[in-house]
Amino acid sequence: MLVEFSIVPVGVGSSIGDYLAEVLDIVDRSGLPYKVNPMGTVVEGEWKEVFSLIEKCHQAVMSKAERAITTITIDDRKGKPNRIEEKVASIEKRLKRNLKK
Amino acid sequence: MLVEFSIVPVGVGSSIGDYLAEVLDIVDRSGLPYKVNPMGTVVEGEWKEVFSLIEKCHQAVMSKAERAITTITIDDRKGKPNRIEEKVASIEKRLKRNLKK
Amino acid sequence: MLVEFSIVPVGVGSSIGDYLAEVLDIVDRSGLPYKVNPMGTVVEGEWKEVFSLIEKCHQAVMSKAERAITTITIDDRKGKPNRIEEKVASIEKRLKRNLKK
Amino acid sequence: MLVEFSIVPVGVGSSIGDYLAEVLDIVDRSGLPYKVNPMGTVVEGEWKEVFSLIEKCHQAVMSKAERAITTITIDDRKGKPNRIEEKVASIEKRLKRNLKK
Repeated sequence: MLVEFSIVPVGVGSSIGDYLAEVLDIVDRSGLPYKVNPMGTVVEGEWKEVFSLIEKCHQAVMSKAERAITTITIDDRKGKPNRIEEKVASIEKRLKRNLKK
Repeated sequence: MLVEFSIVPVGVGSSIGDYLAEVLDIVDRSGLPYKVNPMGTVVEGEWKEVFSLIEKCHQAVMSKAERAITTITIDDRKGKPNRIEEKVASIEKRLKRNLKK
Repeated sequence: MLVEFSIVPVGVGSSIGDYLAEVLDIVDRSGLPYKVNPMGTVVEGEWKEVFSLIEKCHQAVMSKAERAITTITIDDRKGKPNRIEEKVASIEKRLKRNLKK
Repeated sequence: MLVEFSIVPVGVGSSIGDYLAEVLDIVDRSGLPYKVNPMGTVVEGEWKEVFSLIEKCHQAVMSKAERAITTITIDDRKGKPNRIEEKVASIEKRLKRNLKK
């Protein structure tokens, strides 16, 4: 399944880049396919491995912040592998042109 | 922590009430504190019990649908128990009047 | 349409109740049907009136905070009025029992 | 401000690529800076122009579907232009390596 997630530490100031860098370091080292965008990170995998990763990221932020808001969106579709690449590619194929990524 | 979640089966028609009834039956029998609203369900608990519940609900929908979109929002704040009741109550106290719930 | 929204000021400390009280004061005075829950507020209305309200709330928070994260979920379904009451009621009818609200 | 949005038509089958292609055609022609990812589209702009675009996309889907779920996340931060490029770049600078995008 495809899962996008985003973690916002609350009560640590308006610059939260150091927290996000630590989260993305964990994601990058996890070995799961991922793509980062300006609003979150998309990962692809099975339920257990994806939520184990998100829990690790969330707890890393909570080890330094009093409060965090974490949002997660799952798009689960049977029998569709490699959607992290194929989903946007299939839209571009329909439109017969490339989109900005 | 407080967690709101919502599951939308895709590809099963625009009336999804039967799916949501099954999800809420699972939530209601789980024993976790919860509150249902027109857009989702809020539960309170520790990471493992909350995500075990959400996984059970998501898999129940996926056992009957080809695709589902599940959204989850976590509000995790240290040292604050019973926030499922206290969070709105603290706003009403500040406003010195009751809100619609 | 039904719309749930939630605004989190960032960089103002971990207690954000004063901001949320101001937001809910605006919602309560707007005249739109609404229901508040521990994770957000659900309103029902047409696009223009709903987004005019959310913009007003968002700008009220931004007038005092450096940064805010606002999340909005729309459930738009043709020909279904009063869903703010009917949606949960239809689930309870299916389950033949009341849920916690 | 940065805004990610995603529209899911409900009740039209589990393959929704034709709807998403129409949405991305509208976004691509809008002239606003954007980046598409496997779970949504991030745009950058002022409130009015961003929500005018999202409304146009949402109504295009509703002109063909009975129901749609649209999710929107706003990250509004004062005095920070070009965040659609700079936000991820600032994380990579902290990590001293490139991330997958």
